[in-house]
Amino acid sequence: MDSLRIELGERAYPIYIGPRLLGDAGLLERVLGRRDVLVVSNETVAPLWLGRLRSGLGTRRLAQHLLPDGEQYKTMEAFSAVLDALVNARFNRDCVVVALGGGVVGDIAGFAAACYQRGVDFVQMPTTLLAQVDSSVGGKTGINHSGGKNLIGAFHQPIAVVADTDALSTLPQRELRAGLAEVIKYGLIRDEPFLGWLESSLDALLARDPAALAQAIRRSCEIKAEIVALDERETGATRALLNLGHTFGHAIETAAGYGAWLHGEAVATGMLLAAELSQRLGWLGVAEVDRIRALLVRAGLPTDPPRLGRTRMLQLMRMDKKVREGQLRLVLLKRLGNAVFTADYSADELELLLKARVGEAAP
Amino acid sequence: MDSLRIELGERAYPIYIGPRLLGDAGLLERVLGRRDVLVVSNETVAPLWLGRLRSGLGTRRLAQHLLPDGEQYKTMEAFSAVLDALVNARFNRDCVVVALGGGVVGDIAGFAAACYQRGVDFVQMPTTLLAQVDSSVGGKTGINHSGGKNLIGAFHQPIAVVADTDALSTLPQRELRAGLAEVIKYGLIRDEPFLGWLESSLDALLARDPAALAQAIRRSCEIKAEIVALDERETGATRALLNLGHTFGHAIETAAGYGAWLHGEAVATGMLLAAELSQRLGWLGVAEVDRIRALLVRAGLPTDPPRLGRTRMLQLMRMDKKVREGQLRLVLLKRLGNAVFTADYSADELELLLKARVGEAAP
Repeated sequence: MDSLRIELGERAYPIYIGPRLLGDAGLLERVLGRRDVLVVSNETVAPLWLGRLRSGLGTRRLAQHLLPDGEQYKTMEAFSAVLDALVNARFNRDCVVVALGGGVVGDIAGFAAACYQRGVDFVQMPTTLLAQVDSSVGGKTGINHSGGKNLIGAFHQPIAVVADTDALSTLPQRELRAGLAEVIKYGLIRDEPFLGWLESSLDALLARDPAALAQAIRRSCEIKAEIVALDERETGATRALLNLGHTFGHAIETAAGYGAWLHGEAVATGMLLAAELSQRLGWLGVAEVDRIRALLVRAGLPTDPPRLGRTRMLQLMRMDKKVREGQLRLVLLKRLGNAVFTADYSADELELLLKARVGEAAP
Repeated sequence: MDSLRIELGERAYPIYIGPRLLGDAGLLERVLGRRDVLVVSNETVAPLWLGRLRSGLGTRRLAQHLLPDGEQYKTMEAFSAVLDALVNARFNRDCVVVALGGGVVGDIAGFAAACYQRGVDFVQMPTTLLAQVDSSVGGKTGINHSGGKNLIGAFHQPIAVVADTDALSTLPQRELRAGLAEVIKYGLIRDEPFLGWLESSLDALLARDPAALAQAIRRSCEIKAEIVALDERETGATRALLNLGHTFGHAIETAAGYGAWLHGEAVATGMLLAAELSQRLGWLGVAEVDRIRALLVRAGLPTDPPRLGRTRMLQLMRMDKKVREGQLRLVLLKRLGNAVFTADYSADELELLLKARVGEAAP
């Protein structure tokens, strides 16, 4: 078992990465003590992994709540149902909510933990690559609104992240690919050598070579931990870097209808759009944009946004949480491995890019 | 205009108390700048005071959302509707939510502000005595659940509290009395001389003498500010003292159906029950309990709980946020002006008290 730590003062917590962790009674006792636990999972993950987790949890007051599977269910209703489950179990403020699943489960369960009795502890047990490298770490929780992705939520750090890499063995290939988008993101924003390693290791990653996956997860979590420790609540410009491609991506997800695109797929296309805008601004060369596109294509990720028209695209992008004083701020690439968060770009170039890539008007 | 400050480090904020504040353009500019504002109010308060506030807000992007009036509407649906209003107005993370109304409006609007885009600023503009002396200060926000009062919510401090004492002129007498319950609470938990002042000033307060009300509000806010600064998130035993009578009171409110009892009425009866238990434990004398009861009766507050049966009462009390490791902790009185938060009381005495006061079984 590998471990690292998110340094957040009194909210610091460990990330455990390795095989067989969900059934590790000693580890679970260390993380959860003998406290009451509500396990939140979904209909797809529970039949595969809830049994192993239950075997590790021993005897205690234990309740479970299963959500439907998919981004389209990251709703107020799902959030409310988790709260009902906590009330129905008569759990008190010293209970722990465990999120067993991907990003959707973690976001909903974490938000419910943030709000139940004004905040109870929660533990992330991510079962998808995307959740293991990104969404389970850093304390962003929330739900979608028909007007925009993740518009409702809370910053609420877990007390621990337990990433059992065995869970990746049952992950559909499409979801593995979506997770790789966020892994590639870390290389693009912060670590050009890691990007090179990803290019040479991509076949091994797609073939689920355990050592390659463990390395990718470890390095991703390290970078995320570093950035979150610097800017926990995204009050500065640092944490926003983790959202390379996300302003474009969230607009795609919202326009397409939640669940039509996987989050990682939308982020992949969004990262390419951000790179293309960076190229138009003279920051990246054509060869570098080609390199990004080639890696995304090899990973089996989409690189073309839906033709929703630039007006609608911009309108949705402006609902992003990064707008300040009317200015749409974007994460762009100064060069590979070096992202910036800025409103200092040519709005005309953004318009031209969108015109070329999503069309003039809605079809 | 009087003002004081809640000392909470980077979350410190001012409380302004005085007449004509809602229309004071200079003050509102200082508090809100030129930012986008959503005013949340209710159907009762808006016709009376929203006009004055709007006249003070000047030109800016301004939206408003009116809630139905009453504790029975402090629901997930009302919370969700405020979030919809923010999305529909296309407000970004730098907007401000203003709560104009009593405790229900402040709790819902504050919780929505805590969750919109993972947290936007909000300002409390309390229009009831209860909100001016208690609920608008300290950052507790939330909604009710059919299983218990305030079970869902967040700690989210306002950036300012603007208490326009003119608003008390339109307050129904029953609500004025309910607010006095929380004022009396401060004397009981922390300030025996203030309790004496309340006894001698009660007629003036009930007659809405402006000087007496201003003094009561000022002293209540001072005590609340002091306690909140010591224990913002109720992780210690200090902040819980503010909940004298509330564990009993929340159970009464839940059992009776939200809105049947005003919060302050339930707290009044709850405080008397806490005092009676304190007497059974030998901490208060009969004369002191009589003194409390007499003051509550003079204030026109109820002193008898509904006969819901001790089993149901205890079950509801155990859903309170103060339970830890199965132990129901209560705020009790060691003497007048000195409350303690403790699990160290005789459970038998509590059972006997409840049997006497709410009956053996549900009717």
